Amino acid sequence: MKISVPATSANLGPGFDTLGLAISLHNQVSIKPSKFHSVSLKGEGSNNPVLKDNNMFIAIFNDFYHNLSNRKRHFRFEFTNEIPLSRGLGSSSAVIVSAIASAYAIEGIEIEKEKLLNLALAYESHPDNITPAVMGGFNVATVQDNEVKFINKNMPKSLKAIVVIPNRPISTQLARKALPYKYSKDDTVFNISHSSLLAAAFISEDWKMLKIASQDKVHQKYRMKQMPELFDVQKTALKNGALMSTLSGSGSTLFSIAFNDDAHRIEKELKKRFPHFKVLSRDFDNAGVTVDY
Amino acid sequence: MKISVPATSANLGPGFDTLGLAISLHNQVSIKPSKFHSVSLKGEGSNNPVLKDNNMFIAIFNDFYHNLSNRKRHFRFEFTNEIPLSRGLGSSSAVIVSAIASAYAIEGIEIEKEKLLNLALAYESHPDNITPAVMGGFNVATVQDNEVKFINKNMPKSLKAIVVIPNRPISTQLARKALPYKYSKDDTVFNISHSSLLAAAFISEDWKMLKIASQDKVHQKYRMKQMPELFDVQKTALKNGALMSTLSGSGSTLFSIAFNDDAHRIEKELKKRFPHFKVLSRDFDNAGVTVDY
Repeated sequence: MKISVPATSANLGPGFDTLGLAISLHNQVSIKPSKFHSVSLKGEGSNNPVLKDNNMFIAIFNDFYHNLSNRKRHFRFEFTNEIPLSRGLGSSSAVIVSAIASAYAIEGIEIEKEKLLNLALAYESHPDNITPAVMGGFNVATVQDNEVKFINKNMPKSLKAIVVIPNRPISTQLARKALPYKYSKDDTVFNISHSSLLAAAFISEDWKMLKIASQDKVHQKYRMKQMPELFDVQKTALKNGALMSTLSGSGSTLFSIAFNDDAHRIEKELKKRFPHFKVLSRDFDNAGVTVDY
Repeated sequence: MKISVPATSANLGPGFDTLGLAISLHNQVSIKPSKFHSVSLKGEGSNNPVLKDNNMFIAIFNDFYHNLSNRKRHFRFEFTNEIPLSRGLGSSSAVIVSAIASAYAIEGIEIEKEKLLNLALAYESHPDNITPAVMGGFNVATVQDNEVKFINKNMPKSLKAIVVIPNRPISTQLARKALPYKYSKDDTVFNISHSSLLAAAFISEDWKMLKIASQDKVHQKYRMKQMPELFDVQKTALKNGALMSTLSGSGSTLFSIAFNDDAHRIEKELKKRFPHFKVLSRDFDNAGVTVDY
Protein backbone atom coordinates (compact mmCIF):
# COMPACT_ATOMS: atom_id res chain seq x y z
CA MET A 1 0.00 0.00 0.00
CA LYS A 2 1.30 3.41 -1.01
CA ILE A 3 0.17 6.79 0.28
CA SER A 4 1.32 9.95 -1.49
CA VAL A 5 0.87 13.62 -0.48
CA PRO A 6 1.99 16.69 -2.47
CA ALA A 7 4.11 19.65 -1.38
CA THR A 8 2.19 22.88 -0.92
CA SER A 9 2.89 26.59 -1.20
CA ALA A 10 0.81 28.78 1.11
CA ASN A 11 -0.06 32.50 1.33
CA LEU A 12 0.76 33.19 -2.35
CA GLY A 13 1.58 36.77 -1.33
CA PRO A 14 -1.48 38.53 0.14
CA GLY A 15 -3.51 35.44 1.12
CA PHE A 16 -2.01 35.10 4.60
CA ASP A 17 -3.16 31.83 6.25
CA THR A 18 -5.77 31.58 3.45
CA LEU A 19 -4.50 30.71 -0.05
CA GLY A 20 -2.47 27.66 -1.01
CA LEU A 21 -1.80 25.25 -3.86
CA ALA A 22 -0.26 21.82 -4.42
CA ILE A 23 2.96 21.12 -6.33
CA SER A 24 4.11 17.82 -7.87
CA LEU A 25 6.76 17.07 -5.26
CA HIS A 26 5.63 14.17 -3.12
CA ASN A 27 6.08 12.59 0.25
CA GLN A 28 5.35 8.90 -0.36
CA VAL A 29 5.16 6.07 2.11
CA SER A 30 4.86 2.39 1.35
CA ILE A 31 3.42 0.34 4.23
CA LYS A 32 3.53 -3.45 4.68
CA PRO A 33 2.60 -5.65 7.63
CA SER A 34 5.80 -6.97 9.16
CA LYS A 35 7.04 -9.02 12.10
CA PHE A 36 8.83 -6.03 13.56
CA HIS A 37 8.30 -2.30 13.41
CA SER A 38 10.83 -0.80 10.98
CA VAL A 39 11.38 2.47 9.14
CA SER A 40 13.47 3.38 6.10
CA LEU A 41 13.99 6.93 4.81
CA LYS A 42 14.95 8.01 1.30
CA GLY A 43 15.21 11.53 -0.05
CA GLU A 44 14.65 14.71 1.96
CA GLY A 45 15.24 14.17 5.68
CA SER A 46 17.04 10.83 5.21
CA ASN A 47 20.34 12.38 6.34
CA ASN A 48 18.76 12.98 9.74
CA PRO A 49 18.79 9.57 11.55
CA VAL A 50 16.75 11.00 14.44
CA LEU A 51 13.71 10.97 12.12
CA LYS A 52 13.81 7.17 12.12
CA ASP A 53 12.86 6.99 15.80
CA ASN A 54 11.40 10.40 16.60
CA ASN A 55 9.08 10.50 13.65
CA MET A 56 5.93 12.68 13.56
CA PHE A 57 4.38 10.35 10.98
CA ILE A 58 4.68 7.30 13.24
CA ALA A 59 3.33 9.18 16.27
CA ILE A 60 0.21 10.41 14.43
CA PHE A 61 -0.27 7.10 12.60
CA ASN A 62 -0.24 5.28 15.96
CA ASP A 63 -2.77 7.72 17.47
CA PHE A 64 -5.26 6.87 14.74
CA TYR A 65 -4.36 3.23 14.21
CA HIS A 66 -4.92 2.37 17.88
CA ASN A 67 -8.32 4.02 17.76
CA LEU A 68 -9.39 2.35 14.53
CA SER A 69 -8.03 -1.17 15.02
CA ASN A 70 -8.42 -3.91 17.60
CA ARG A 71 -5.45 -5.82 16.23
CA LYS A 72 -1.90 -5.21 17.36
CA ARG A 73 0.17 -5.38 14.17
CA HIS A 74 3.64 -4.24 13.17
CA PHE A 75 4.52 -2.53 9.93
CA ARG A 76 7.44 -1.70 7.72
CA PHE A 77 7.30 1.95 6.62
CA GLU A 78 9.37 2.98 3.59
CA PHE A 79 9.42 6.73 3.10
CA THR A 80 10.49 8.41 -0.14
CA ASN A 81 10.32 12.14 0.42
CA GLU A 82 10.80 14.84 -2.22
CA ILE A 83 9.57 17.67 0.04
CA PRO A 84 12.43 19.62 1.65
CA LEU A 85 12.04 20.09 5.41
CA SER A 86 11.64 23.53 7.03
CA ARG A 87 11.59 25.39 3.71
CA GLY A 88 7.96 26.54 3.56
CA LEU A 89 6.77 23.78 1.24
CA GLY A 90 4.32 22.16 3.64
CA SER A 91 6.48 19.19 4.70
CA SER A 92 4.77 18.97 8.13
CA SER A 93 1.29 19.21 6.64
CA ALA A 94 2.19 16.43 4.19
CA VAL A 95 3.31 14.20 7.07
CA ILE A 96 0.14 14.89 9.10
CA VAL A 97 -2.16 14.18 6.13
CA SER A 98 -0.16 11.11 5.11
CA ALA A 99 -0.19 9.62 8.61
CA ILE A 100 -3.96 9.97 9.06
CA ALA A 101 -4.71 8.68 5.54
CA SER A 102 -2.35 5.72 6.15
CA ALA A 103 -4.01 4.67 9.41
CA TYR A 104 -7.43 4.58 7.71
CA ALA A 105 -6.08 2.88 4.57
CA ILE A 106 -4.25 0.11 6.43
CA GLU A 107 -7.52 -0.77 8.17
CA GLY A 108 -9.39 -0.64 4.86
CA ILE A 109 -11.67 2.16 6.08
CA GLU A 110 -12.65 4.69 3.43
CA ILE A 111 -12.50 8.27 4.62
CA GLU A 112 -13.94 11.30 2.81
CA LYS A 113 -11.41 13.98 1.99
CA GLU A 114 -13.38 16.61 3.92
CA LYS A 115 -13.24 14.46 7.04
CA LEU A 116 -9.52 13.79 6.61
CA LEU A 117 -8.94 17.53 6.26
CA ASN A 118 -10.79 18.29 9.49
CA LEU A 119 -8.86 15.57 11.34
CA ALA A 120 -5.60 17.12 10.10
CA LEU A 121 -6.74 20.48 11.50
CA ALA A 122 -6.19 19.14 15.03
CA TYR A 123 -2.45 18.93 14.28
CA GLU A 124 -2.06 22.10 12.18
CA SER A 125 -4.31 25.01 13.06
CA HIS A 126 -3.88 26.94 9.79
CA PRO A 127 -5.78 25.62 6.76
CA ASP A 128 -3.53 27.01 4.00
CA ASN A 129 -1.16 24.01 3.67
CA ILE A 130 -3.35 21.10 4.78
CA THR A 131 -6.18 22.00 2.37
CA PRO A 132 -4.10 21.71 -0.84
CA ALA A 133 -2.21 18.73 0.65
CA VAL A 134 -5.54 16.88 0.91
CA MET A 135 -7.44 18.31 -2.07
CA GLY A 136 -4.72 19.24 -4.58
CA GLY A 137 -5.03 22.26 -6.88
CA PHE A 138 -5.61 25.86 -5.80
CA ASN A 139 -7.54 26.49 -2.57
CA VAL A 140 -9.08 29.35 -0.62
CA ALA A 141 -9.70 28.31 2.97
CA THR A 142 -10.77 29.55 6.37
CA VAL A 143 -11.64 27.82 9.64
CA GLN A 144 -15.00 28.09 11.37
CA ASP A 145 -16.19 26.01 14.35
CA ASN A 146 -13.16 23.71 14.01
CA GLU A 147 -13.97 22.95 10.39
CA VAL A 148 -12.13 24.00 7.25
CA LYS A 149 -14.39 25.87 4.81
CA PHE A 150 -12.78 25.96 1.41
CA ILE A 151 -13.19 26.38 -2.32
CA ASN A 152 -10.99 24.26 -4.60
CA LYS A 153 -10.02 24.69 -8.27
CA ASN A 154 -7.80 22.54 -10.49
CA MET A 155 -4.62 24.11 -11.88
CA PRO A 156 -4.13 23.84 -15.66
CA LYS A 157 -1.40 21.84 -17.42
CA SER A 158 -0.26 25.04 -19.16
CA LEU A 159 1.35 26.41 -15.99
CA LYS A 160 4.45 25.35 -14.07
CA ALA A 161 5.58 25.90 -10.48
CA ILE A 162 9.18 27.02 -10.13
CA VAL A 163 10.62 26.76 -6.63
CA VAL A 164 13.93 28.20 -5.46
CA ILE A 165 14.90 26.36 -2.29
CA PRO A 166 17.65 28.07 -0.25
CA ASN A 167 20.38 26.06 1.44
CA ARG A 168 19.11 27.11 4.88
CA PRO A 169 15.74 27.78 6.57
CA ILE A 170 14.28 31.02 7.92
CA SER A 171 13.47 30.19 11.54
CA THR A 172 9.66 29.99 11.75
CA GLN A 173 9.84 31.50 15.20
CA LEU A 174 11.92 34.44 13.97
CA ALA A 175 9.63 34.75 10.95
CA ARG A 176 6.56 34.99 13.20
CA LYS A 177 8.28 37.42 15.59
CA ALA A 178 9.27 39.66 12.70
CA LEU A 179 5.61 40.42 11.94
CA PRO A 180 3.95 43.63 13.20
CA TYR A 181 1.58 43.36 16.13
CA LYS A 182 -1.05 45.62 14.48
CA TYR A 183 -1.84 46.70 10.93
CA SER A 184 -3.03 50.07 9.60
CA LYS A 185 -6.36 50.28 7.81
CA ASP A 186 -4.53 50.94 4.53
CA ASP A 187 -2.39 47.80 4.80
CA THR A 188 -5.40 45.75 5.91
CA VAL A 189 -7.49 46.93 2.95
CA PHE A 190 -4.52 46.40 0.62
CA ASN A 191 -4.33 42.73 1.55
CA ILE A 192 -8.11 42.22 1.60
CA SER A 193 -8.35 43.56 -1.95
CA HIS A 194 -5.27 41.85 -3.36
CA SER A 195 -6.01 38.45 -1.82
CA SER A 196 -9.62 38.64 -3.06
CA LEU A 197 -8.46 39.62 -6.55
CA LEU A 198 -5.88 36.81 -6.52
CA ALA A 199 -8.50 34.23 -5.52
CA ALA A 200 -10.79 35.54 -8.28
CA ALA A 201 -7.90 35.41 -10.79
CA PHE A 202 -7.10 31.75 -10.03
CA ILE A 203 -10.72 30.69 -10.19
CA SER A 204 -11.50 32.60 -13.38
CA GLU A 205 -8.08 31.66 -14.89
CA ASP A 206 -7.16 35.31 -15.46
CA TRP A 207 -3.40 34.70 -15.40
CA LYS A 208 -2.46 38.22 -16.48
CA MET A 209 -3.90 39.44 -13.17
CA LEU A 210 -1.57 37.33 -10.98
CA LYS A 211 1.33 39.78 -10.92
CA ILE A 212 -0.70 42.74 -9.65
CA ALA A 213 -2.93 40.67 -7.39
CA SER A 214 -0.08 38.77 -5.68
CA GLN A 215 1.31 41.82 -3.87
CA ASP A 216 1.34 41.76 -0.07
CA LYS A 217 1.85 44.26 2.77
CA VAL A 218 1.20 42.03 5.76
CA HIS A 219 4.03 39.50 6.09
CA GLN A 220 6.26 38.91 3.06
CA LYS A 221 8.81 41.74 3.24
CA TYR A 222 9.22 41.32 7.02
CA ARG A 223 10.18 37.70 6.50
CA MET A 224 12.24 38.13 3.32
CA LYS A 225 14.40 40.75 5.07
CA GLN A 226 15.88 37.87 7.06
CA MET A 227 17.30 36.47 3.82
CA PRO A 228 17.65 39.54 1.55
CA GLU A 229 18.86 37.45 -1.41
CA LEU A 230 15.22 36.37 -1.79
CA PHE A 231 14.35 39.84 -3.14
CA ASP A 232 16.85 39.18 -5.97
CA VAL A 233 15.34 35.76 -6.62
CA GLN A 234 11.89 37.37 -6.87
CA LYS A 235 13.11 40.12 -9.22
CA THR A 236 14.94 37.61 -11.43
CA ALA A 237 11.86 35.40 -11.74
CA LEU A 238 9.52 38.30 -12.58
CA LYS A 239 12.01 39.91 -14.99
CA ASN A 240 12.27 36.63 -16.90
CA GLY A 241 8.52 36.22 -17.35
CA ALA A 242 7.12 34.67 -14.16
CA LEU A 243 3.40 35.44 -13.76
CA MET A 244 3.89 35.85 -10.01
CA SER A 245 6.66 35.23 -7.47
CA THR A 246 6.01 35.00 -3.72
CA LEU A 247 7.49 33.69 -0.51
CA SER A 248 6.32 30.11 0.04
CA GLY A 249 4.66 29.92 3.45
CA SER A 250 6.99 31.60 5.93
CA GLY A 251 9.99 30.76 3.69
CA SER A 252 12.69 30.22 2.91
CA THR A 253 11.54 28.88 -0.51
CA LEU A 254 10.53 31.38 -3.17
CA PHE A 255 7.64 30.15 -5.32
CA SER A 256 6.88 31.33 -8.86
CA ILE A 257 4.28 30.49 -11.51
CA ALA A 258 5.01 30.63 -15.23
CA PHE A 259 3.58 29.48 -18.53
CA ASN A 260 5.21 26.22 -19.72
CA ASP A 261 6.93 28.11 -22.54
CA ASP A 262 8.69 30.44 -20.11
CA ALA A 263 9.44 28.00 -17.30
CA HIS A 264 12.62 26.53 -18.76
CA ARG A 265 14.22 29.93 -19.36
CA ILE A 266 13.29 31.15 -15.86
CA GLU A 267 14.63 27.96 -14.30
CA LYS A 268 17.91 28.28 -16.23
CA GLU A 269 18.38 31.92 -15.28
CA LEU A 270 17.65 31.22 -11.61
CA LYS A 271 20.13 28.30 -11.57
CA LYS A 272 22.79 30.52 -13.11
CA ARG A 273 22.31 33.41 -10.70
CA PHE A 274 21.74 31.36 -7.54
CA PRO A 275 23.98 28.29 -7.91
CA HIS A 276 23.98 27.62 -4.13
CA PHE A 277 20.16 27.30 -4.10
CA LYS A 278 18.14 24.37 -5.47
CA VAL A 279 15.89 25.31 -8.40
CA LEU A 280 13.08 23.00 -9.54
CA SER A 281 10.35 23.36 -12.15
CA ARG A 282 7.31 21.12 -11.60
CA ASP A 283 3.70 20.63 -12.65
CA PHE A 284 0.94 21.45 -10.23
CA ASP A 285 -0.74 18.56 -8.42
CA ASN A 286 -4.54 18.32 -8.72
CA ALA A 287 -4.93 14.98 -6.95
CA GLY A 288 -3.96 15.83 -3.39
CA VAL A 289 -3.51 12.83 -1.12
CA THR A 290 -3.78 9.47 -2.93
CA VAL A 291 -3.92 5.90 -1.66
CA ASP A 292 -2.85 2.99 -3.89
CA TYR A 293 -3.77 -0.47 -2.67
CA MET B 1 -30.63 60.01 -25.69
CA LYS B 2 -30.95 58.03 -22.46
CA ILE B 3 -28.15 57.05 -20.06
CA SER B 4 -28.83 54.56 -17.29
CA VAL B 5 -26.61 53.48 -14.37
CA PRO B 6 -27.45 50.83 -11.73
CA ALA B 7 -27.39 51.07 -7.94
CA THR B 8 -24.50 49.22 -6.29
CA SER B 9 -23.83 47.49 -2.98
CA ALA B 10 -20.19 47.60 -1.85
CA ASN B 11 -18.09 45.70 0.71
CA LEU B 12 -20.48 42.71 0.90
CA GLY B 13 -19.23 42.15 4.47
CA PRO B 14 -15.49 41.42 4.52
CA GLY B 15 -14.54 42.93 1.14
CA PHE B 16 -13.88 46.42 2.48
CA ASP B 17 -13.29 48.87 -0.44
CA THR B 18 -12.94 45.78 -2.68
CA LEU B 19 -16.13 43.84 -3.47
CA GLY B 20 -19.31 45.23 -5.03
CA LEU B 21 -22.25 44.30 -7.24
CA ALA B 22 -24.95 46.02 -9.28
CA ILE B 23 -28.69 45.97 -8.50
CA SER B 24 -31.59 46.71 -10.87
CA LEU B 25 -32.43 50.09 -9.42
CA HIS B 26 -31.45 52.79 -11.89
CA ASN B 27 -30.52 56.41 -12.16
CA GLN B 28 -31.65 57.41 -15.66
CA VAL B 29 -31.19 60.66 -17.48
CA SER B 30 -32.69 61.68 -20.80
CA ILE B 31 -30.77 64.47 -22.59
CA LYS B 32 -31.99 66.66 -25.45
CA PRO B 33 -30.46 69.75 -27.08
CA SER B 34 -32.52 72.76 -26.02
CA LYS B 35 -32.57 76.56 -26.33
CA PHE B 36 -32.02 76.94 -22.61
CA HIS B 37 -30.36 74.86 -19.94
CA SER B 38 -33.06 73.10 -17.90
CA VAL B 39 -33.30 70.28 -15.39
CA SER B 40 -36.21 68.15 -14.19
CA LEU B 41 -36.05 65.62 -11.36
CA LYS B 42 -38.28 62.61 -10.74
CA GLY B 43 -37.96 59.95 -8.06
CA GLU B 44 -35.29 59.87 -5.36
CA GLY B 45 -33.90 63.35 -4.63
CA SER B 46 -36.72 65.18 -6.42
CA ASN B 47 -38.04 66.56 -3.12
CA ASN B 48 -34.77 68.46 -2.73
CA PRO B 49 -35.04 71.52 -5.04
CA VAL B 50 -31.38 72.44 -4.35
CA LEU B 51 -30.37 69.51 -6.59
CA LYS B 52 -31.82 71.34 -9.58
CA ASP B 53 -29.17 74.06 -9.42
CA ASN B 54 -26.38 72.57 -7.33
CA ASN B 55 -26.19 69.30 -9.17
CA MET B 56 -23.09 67.07 -9.18
CA PHE B 57 -24.17 65.52 -12.48
CA ILE B 58 -24.26 68.89 -14.28
CA ALA B 59 -20.90 69.95 -12.83
CA ILE B 60 -19.10 66.76 -13.95
CA PHE B 61 -20.96 66.69 -17.29
CA ASN B 62 -19.80 70.27 -17.99
CA ASP B 63 -16.18 69.41 -17.06
CA PHE B 64 -16.10 66.72 -19.73
CA TYR B 65 -18.39 68.36 -22.28
CA HIS B 66 -16.25 71.51 -22.45
CA ASN B 67 -13.15 69.39 -23.02
CA LEU B 68 -14.74 67.19 -25.67
CA SER B 69 -16.75 69.76 -27.66
CA ASN B 70 -16.03 73.02 -29.49
CA ARG B 71 -19.71 73.88 -29.69
CA LYS B 72 -21.56 75.76 -27.01
CA ARG B 73 -24.92 74.02 -26.71
CA HIS B 74 -27.67 73.91 -24.12
CA PHE B 75 -29.50 70.79 -23.00
CA ARG B 76 -32.62 69.69 -21.24
CA PHE B 77 -31.79 67.02 -18.61
CA GLU B 78 -34.64 64.83 -17.32
CA PHE B 79 -33.60 62.68 -14.40
CA THR B 80 -35.56 59.67 -13.19
CA ASN B 81 -33.77 58.30 -10.17
CA GLU B 82 -34.64 55.07 -8.31
CA ILE B 83 -31.43 55.10 -6.20
CA PRO B 84 -32.00 56.51 -2.70
CA LEU B 85 -29.48 59.18 -1.69
CA SER B 86 -27.03 58.71 1.21
CA ARG B 87 -28.14 55.16 1.94
CA GLY B 88 -25.07 53.20 0.83
CA LEU B 89 -26.45 52.18 -2.57
CA GLY B 90 -23.88 54.01 -4.69
CA SER B 91 -25.99 57.04 -5.64
CA SER B 92 -22.92 59.29 -5.98
CA SER B 93 -21.01 56.73 -8.04
CA ALA B 94 -24.04 56.39 -10.33
CA VAL B 95 -24.12 60.16 -10.85
CA ILE B 96 -20.36 60.32 -11.59
CA VAL B 97 -20.52 57.46 -14.09
CA SER B 98 -23.70 58.80 -15.70
CA ALA B 99 -22.28 62.32 -16.11
CA ILE B 100 -19.07 61.15 -17.80
CA ALA B 101 -20.90 58.66 -20.04
CA SER B 102 -23.41 61.39 -20.99
CA ALA B 103 -20.76 63.92 -22.03
CA TYR B 104 -19.14 61.37 -24.36
CA ALA B 105 -22.49 60.12 -25.67
CA ILE B 106 -23.87 63.57 -26.48
CA GLU B 107 -20.75 64.24 -28.59
CA GLY B 108 -21.11 60.83 -30.28
CA ILE B 109 -17.70 59.68 -29.00
CA GLU B 110 -17.49 55.99 -28.12
CA ILE B 111 -15.68 55.32 -24.89
CA GLU B 112 -14.50 51.91 -23.64
CA LYS B 113 -15.87 50.88 -20.28
CA GLU B 114 -12.37 50.50 -18.80
CA LYS B 115 -11.54 54.08 -19.76
CA LEU B 116 -14.83 55.37 -18.35
CA LEU B 117 -14.10 53.53 -15.10
CA ASN B 118 -10.67 55.11 -14.76
CA LEU B 119 -12.08 58.59 -15.47
CA ALA B 120 -14.68 58.02 -12.73
CA LEU B 121 -11.83 57.16 -10.33
CA ALA B 122 -10.78 60.84 -10.32
CA TYR B 123 -14.10 61.67 -8.59
CA GLU B 124 -14.41 58.63 -6.31
CA SER B 125 -11.17 57.15 -5.02
CA HIS B 126 -12.58 53.76 -3.97
CA PRO B 127 -13.29 51.26 -6.74
CA ASP B 128 -15.99 49.20 -5.01
CA ASN B 129 -19.05 51.18 -6.19
CA ILE B 130 -17.85 52.67 -9.49
CA THR B 131 -16.71 49.29 -10.87
CA PRO B 132 -20.13 47.57 -10.67
CA ALA B 133 -21.83 50.86 -11.69
CA VAL B 134 -19.84 50.75 -14.96
CA MET B 135 -19.51 46.99 -15.51
CA GLY B 136 -22.63 45.51 -13.85
CA GLY B 137 -22.53 42.12 -12.09
CA PHE B 138 -20.21 41.10 -9.28
CA ASN B 139 -16.76 42.69 -9.11
CA VAL B 140 -13.48 42.37 -7.21
CA ALA B 141 -11.42 45.54 -7.57
CA THR B 142 -8.31 47.31 -6.40
CA VAL B 143 -6.48 50.44 -7.54
CA GLN B 144 -2.89 50.49 -8.79
CA ASP B 145 -1.13 53.46 -10.44
CA ASN B 146 -4.44 55.34 -10.70
CA GLU B 147 -6.09 52.49 -12.58
CA VAL B 148 -8.81 50.13 -11.43
CA LYS B 149 -7.76 46.47 -11.71
CA PHE B 150 -10.82 44.27 -11.52
CA ILE B 151 -12.40 40.90 -12.25
CA ASN B 152 -16.07 40.86 -13.25
CA LYS B 153 -18.66 38.08 -13.20
CA ASN B 154 -22.33 38.08 -14.21
CA MET B 155 -24.91 37.37 -11.51
CA PRO B 156 -27.46 34.62 -12.30
CA LYS B 157 -31.21 35.14 -12.80
CA SER B 158 -31.86 32.63 -10.01
CA LEU B 159 -30.84 35.12 -7.30
CA LYS B 160 -32.52 38.28 -6.01
CA ALA B 161 -31.19 41.31 -4.16
CA ILE B 162 -33.31 42.36 -1.19
CA VAL B 163 -32.57 45.82 0.19
CA VAL B 164 -33.91 47.28 3.43
CA ILE B 165 -33.57 51.05 3.20
CA PRO B 166 -33.92 52.88 6.54
CA ASN B 167 -35.78 56.17 6.81
CA ARG B 168 -32.53 57.98 7.71
CA PRO B 169 -28.83 57.82 6.76
CA ILE B 170 -25.81 56.87 8.86
CA SER B 171 -23.50 59.86 8.57
CA THR B 172 -20.60 58.76 6.35
CA GLN B 173 -18.29 60.90 8.45
CA LEU B 174 -19.47 59.29 11.66
CA ALA B 175 -19.30 55.88 10.00
CA ARG B 176 -15.65 56.47 8.98
CA LYS B 177 -14.77 57.89 12.42
CA ALA B 178 -16.29 54.87 14.13
CA LEU B 179 -13.67 52.58 12.58
CA PRO B 180 -10.56 51.49 14.52
CA TYR B 181 -7.27 53.11 13.67
CA LYS B 182 -5.39 49.77 13.67
CA TYR B 183 -6.35 46.12 13.33
CA SER B 184 -4.97 43.04 15.08
CA LYS B 185 -3.35 40.30 13.02
CA ASP B 186 -6.29 38.01 13.83
CA ASP B 187 -8.89 40.47 12.53
CA THR B 188 -6.75 41.24 9.47
CA VAL B 189 -6.38 37.54 8.62
CA PHE B 190 -10.09 36.99 9.31
CA ASN B 191 -11.04 39.54 6.65
CA ILE B 192 -8.35 38.45 4.19
CA SER B 193 -9.62 34.87 4.33
CA HIS B 194 -13.34 35.66 4.33
CA SER B 195 -13.18 38.22 1.53
CA SER B 196 -11.06 35.83 -0.58
CA LEU B 197 -13.49 32.99 0.07
CA LEU B 198 -16.45 35.26 -0.76
CA ALA B 199 -14.85 36.34 -4.07
CA ALA B 200 -14.17 32.68 -4.88
CA ALA B 201 -17.76 31.77 -3.97
CA PHE B 202 -19.29 34.38 -6.29
CA ILE B 203 -17.01 33.44 -9.18
CA SER B 204 -17.48 29.69 -8.79
CA GLU B 205 -21.23 30.16 -8.00
CA ASP B 206 -20.89 28.31 -4.70
CA TRP B 207 -23.94 30.00 -3.13
CA LYS B 208 -23.97 27.81 -0.02
CA MET B 209 -20.63 29.38 0.93
CA LEU B 210 -21.95 32.98 1.00
CA LYS B 211 -23.22 32.90 4.58
CA ILE B 212 -19.93 31.81 6.13
CA ALA B 213 -17.74 33.81 3.76
CA SER B 214 -19.65 37.10 4.17
CA GLN B 215 -18.60 37.62 7.80
CA ASP B 216 -16.56 40.73 8.62
CA LYS B 217 -14.49 42.02 11.55
CA VAL B 218 -13.16 45.25 10.07
CA HIS B 219 -16.03 47.72 9.65
CA GLN B 220 -19.57 46.37 9.74
CA LYS B 221 -20.37 46.09 13.44
CA TYR B 222 -18.76 49.48 14.18
CA ARG B 223 -21.09 51.11 11.67
CA MET B 224 -24.21 49.09 12.44
CA LYS B 225 -23.94 50.04 16.13
CA GLN B 226 -25.00 53.52 15.08
CA MET B 227 -28.37 52.09 14.01
CA PRO B 228 -28.75 48.94 16.15
CA GLU B 229 -32.05 47.97 14.48
CA LEU B 230 -29.90 46.86 11.53
CA PHE B 231 -28.72 43.83 13.53
CA ASP B 232 -32.40 42.76 13.76
CA VAL B 233 -32.87 43.30 10.03
CA GLN B 234 -29.82 41.10 9.35
CA LYS B 235 -31.02 38.35 11.72
CA THR B 236 -34.50 38.41 10.21
CA ALA B 237 -33.16 38.10 6.66
CA LEU B 238 -30.82 35.21 7.52
CA LYS B 239 -33.44 33.42 9.63
CA ASN B 240 -35.86 33.52 6.72
CA GLY B 241 -33.45 32.00 4.22
CA ALA B 242 -31.20 34.79 2.92
CA LEU B 243 -27.89 33.40 1.59
CA MET B 244 -26.08 36.42 3.04
CA SER B 245 -26.98 39.74 4.62
CA THR B 246 -24.51 42.64 4.92
CA LEU B 247 -24.36 46.38 5.41
CA SER B 248 -24.47 48.08 2.00
CA GLY B 249 -21.40 50.33 1.70
CA SER B 250 -21.22 52.37 4.89
CA GLY B 251 -24.99 52.04 5.36
CA SER B 252 -27.67 52.63 6.24
CA THR B 253 -29.15 50.09 3.77
CA LEU B 254 -28.95 46.41 4.62
CA PHE B 255 -28.39 44.23 1.55
CA SER B 256 -29.32 40.54 1.30
CA ILE B 257 -29.11 37.87 -1.40
CA ALA B 258 -31.66 35.06 -1.73
CA PHE B 259 -32.80 32.43 -4.19
CA ASN B 260 -35.85 33.60 -6.17
CA ASP B 261 -38.02 31.05 -4.35
CA ASP B 262 -37.17 32.53 -0.95
CA ALA B 263 -37.06 36.23 -1.87
CA HIS B 264 -40.80 36.89 -1.64
CA ARG B 265 -41.10 35.37 1.84
CA ILE B 266 -38.06 37.28 3.11
CA GLU B 267 -39.36 40.53 1.63
CA LYS B 268 -42.78 40.00 3.25
CA GLU B 269 -41.29 39.21 6.65
CA LEU B 270 -38.98 42.24 6.53
CA LYS B 271 -41.89 44.53 5.54
CA LYS B 272 -43.95 43.20 8.44
CA ARG B 273 -41.20 43.60 11.04
CA PHE B 274 -39.80 46.93 9.79
CA PRO B 275 -42.80 48.88 8.48
CA HIS B 276 -40.98 52.23 8.77
CA PHE B 277 -38.19 51.03 6.42
CA LYS B 278 -38.49 50.59 2.66
CA VAL B 279 -38.05 46.97 1.52
CA LEU B 280 -37.39 46.14 -2.15
CA SER B 281 -36.61 42.89 -3.95
CA ARG B 282 -34.86 43.30 -7.29
CA ASP B 283 -32.88 41.37 -9.91
CA PHE B 284 -29.16 41.96 -10.22
CA ASP B 285 -27.96 44.17 -13.06
CA ASN B 286 -25.34 42.66 -15.41
CA ALA B 287 -25.28 45.53 -17.92
CA GLY B 288 -23.78 48.37 -15.88
CA VAL B 289 -23.95 51.77 -17.54
CA THR B 290 -25.96 51.80 -20.79
CA VAL B 291 -26.45 54.46 -23.46
CA ASP B 292 -29.53 54.44 -25.73
CA TYR B 293 -29.44 56.73 -28.74
